Amino acid sequence: MTDTSPAPFTEQDYAARMYRAAREAALVGLSGLLVTPGPDLVWMCGYRPPAVTEHLTLLVLAADSEPYLLVPALERGDAQAAPGAGAVRITAWQDGQDAYAAAAGLLRAHGRYGVSDGTWAVHLLGLQAALPLSSYRPLSTALPLLRAVKDERELARLTAAGAAADAAYADLLGVRFAGRREREVADVLARLLRDHGHERVEFTVVGSGPNGADPHHMAGDRRIEDGDMVVLDFGGLKDGYGSDTTRTVHVGEPTVEERAVHEVVRAAQQAAFEAVKPGVPCQEIDRAARAVITDAGYGAYFTHRTGHGIGVSTHEPPYLVEGEHSPLAPGMCFSIEPGVYLPGRFGVRVEDIVSCGQDGGRRLNTTSRELAVVG
Amino acid sequence: MTDTSPAPFTEQDYAARMYRAAREAALVGLSGLLVTPGPDLVWMCGYRPPAVTEHLTLLVLAADSEPYLLVPALERGDAQAAPGAGAVRITAWQDGQDAYAAAAGLLRAHGRYGVSDGTWAVHLLGLQAALPLSSYRPLSTALPLLRAVKDERELARLTAAGAAADAAYADLLGVRFAGRREREVADVLARLLRDHGHERVEFTVVGSGPNGADPHHMAGDRRIEDGDMVVLDFGGLKDGYGSDTTRTVHVGEPTVEERAVHEVVRAAQQAAFEAVKPGVPCQEIDRAARAVITDAGYGAYFTHRTGHGIGVSTHEPPYLVEGEHSPLAPGMCFSIEPGVYLPGRFGVRVEDIVSCGQDGGRRLNTTSRELAVVG
Repeated sequence: MTDTSPAPFTEQDYAARMYRAAREAALVGLSGLLVTPGPDLVWMCGYRPPAVTEHLTLLVLAADSEPYLLVPALERGDAQAAPGAGAVRITAWQDGQDAYAAAAGLLRAHGRYGVSDGTWAVHLLGLQAALPLSSYRPLSTALPLLRAVKDERELARLTAAGAAADAAYADLLGVRFAGRREREVADVLARLLRDHGHERVEFTVVGSGPNGADPHHMAGDRRIEDGDMVVLDFGGLKDGYGSDTTRTVHVGEPTVEERAVHEVVRAAQQAAFEAVKPGVPCQEIDRAARAVITDAGYGAYFTHRTGHGIGVSTHEPPYLVEGEHSPLAPGMCFSIEPGVYLPGRFGVRVEDIVSCGQDGGRRLNTTSRELAVVG
Repeated sequence: MTDTSPAPFTEQDYAARMYRAAREAALVGLSGLLVTPGPDLVWMCGYRPPAVTEHLTLLVLAADSEPYLLVPALERGDAQAAPGAGAVRITAWQDGQDAYAAAAGLLRAHGRYGVSDGTWAVHLLGLQAALPLSSYRPLSTALPLLRAVKDERELARLTAAGAAADAAYADLLGVRFAGRREREVADVLARLLRDHGHERVEFTVVGSGPNGADPHHMAGDRRIEDGDMVVLDFGGLKDGYGSDTTRTVHVGEPTVEERAVHEVVRAAQQAAFEAVKPGVPCQEIDRAARAVITDAGYGAYFTHRTGHGIGVSTHEPPYLVEGEHSPLAPGMCFSIEPGVYLPGRFGVRVEDIVSCGQDGGRRLNTTSRELAVVG
């Protein structure tokens, strides 16, 4: 396959994101946002520190100030090399200095801040101690959909990541399954994802036979046998954006029941896909998938939500789940991944990443969703 | 090399660790400890969830109760498969249930808890909201040395991890450096660490020429040239325990100055090693290394602490740094890694993992610390 790296995001892109984030924070009554290493920070200013440690790295966004990025002195060079570095004012705290006192100098004593969900407790406790009158809300609660709507260039990257995952799956169909351990197939899958341009592999689930009935199973020592259903769920990051797709394959000829269960799941996935349209509440996508599976008598065996958003992280809002009333909007990107899990026997899941367009959904995974037979 | 997996830790081992942790927490006035996924949880009960997510997983330790492990329902099977599962009471919260209310049921309303440093803010804020009268301290502040003293079996694993890193370095000396990019050499190094038994590679620093003068540099696109000093700092986990070693090599014949700077660092590392003895305050190890470098006139160019502990994580207490008065104790394991960094020119660092024995230190890395010449 041909593959060219996408044009990098510019300082202006990052500046626009941070400006919008600070504005939305003000609109929900927050003094600002405190962003620590992880997907939020990468999205806001392109900075991914070499390691996440006990040393505080903190981006401070407020509507009435320019963005400040506080970093340990040793990290200054890394931060300055980030693509969005020009859009923030970098300030370093020295070894031996109190990092929380340094942070407090950038914050309001009575401030109410949204804070990245994954911020380490040691840092939050440090801020709470330095500013006892300040208060904090998780960013996912305060502004759950901040990163949910993707722009054109983000969509291009998600599309490319999906295509790379599809190419890995196409290659995988040619390898031998019978007689190999799940872990070996998972290793092959990881290599294929890298070969097709993923810089990070996050998960390569290979759930064969009864293991496929555990939606949380990763890949183990079980030897795959002729006659097994095998759930393959894999993804990672390519050029900083996520892939996540699932196909269920069968080693040798499937039984009538296996085909039937797979067809129920495939049809559920299709129904959910067809329900995608701007303005539709997230929970309706879940309901569309669940209705098909429930009507077929397998409702009790579809034990998880239908999907999750994807972007600079492989799991993020919006969540397609009962109770989530947020409406879909053009540019949102998410998985649609219904499944049926028959305990002790086998499981089936079919998953594509889908983007919401003006008129409906667009699949970013386009390999066949029919039950593939492998050797 | 021959390599056999060590005997796994038993339920009794984990039970003993949790009992001691709960007791030490009580001794410093805490109601208990709250442990979330990461090194603390692995050490306490052997549980490493498939992914760290927004779903709360929480081990609750208190001196007056048995240990409870609260997990998302989907994770119950994984938790039950952990080697220490038999030593905890596993309780699951269901999708749709309030995980923090479930956790609050295991805690005291006015409790004072030590909490894992890396606990996500979203979880800490959830606990603080569910129990407004409770209070929290980072585990690293409350009980900094809880995991610092290693038992015999932990030492055996750290020794094996060190030997594997040494074997990777020995192999690396045979590969070509000149003309290759740092990143390529880093990839080779990562593969060698895996070949020698590491299940996780955490860092493979290749800092050539001026890049070596940035102690925080990882590995980049720079092509290594004849005449370069190259700092190689690498490690990861083998059988769950960490390795971390640094050697500085030279491509072709070094200059007199390069040899001299390397010798200063080597001698500083040796002096610090010789200072290791039970009862010696951590900062004395730092001072021993720093004195040698300062006496040689390079004090301003040794810009970081001398070392850090290592165990189920590659960076943990004790820290060998000015101001750290905790005394060394038999069974503590830590890096000794002085360096000299000449901005824009080159850097030198020499690092071994050292364990503290009854009579002095023992090196867990034993490859030559002389300046090696590579091709």
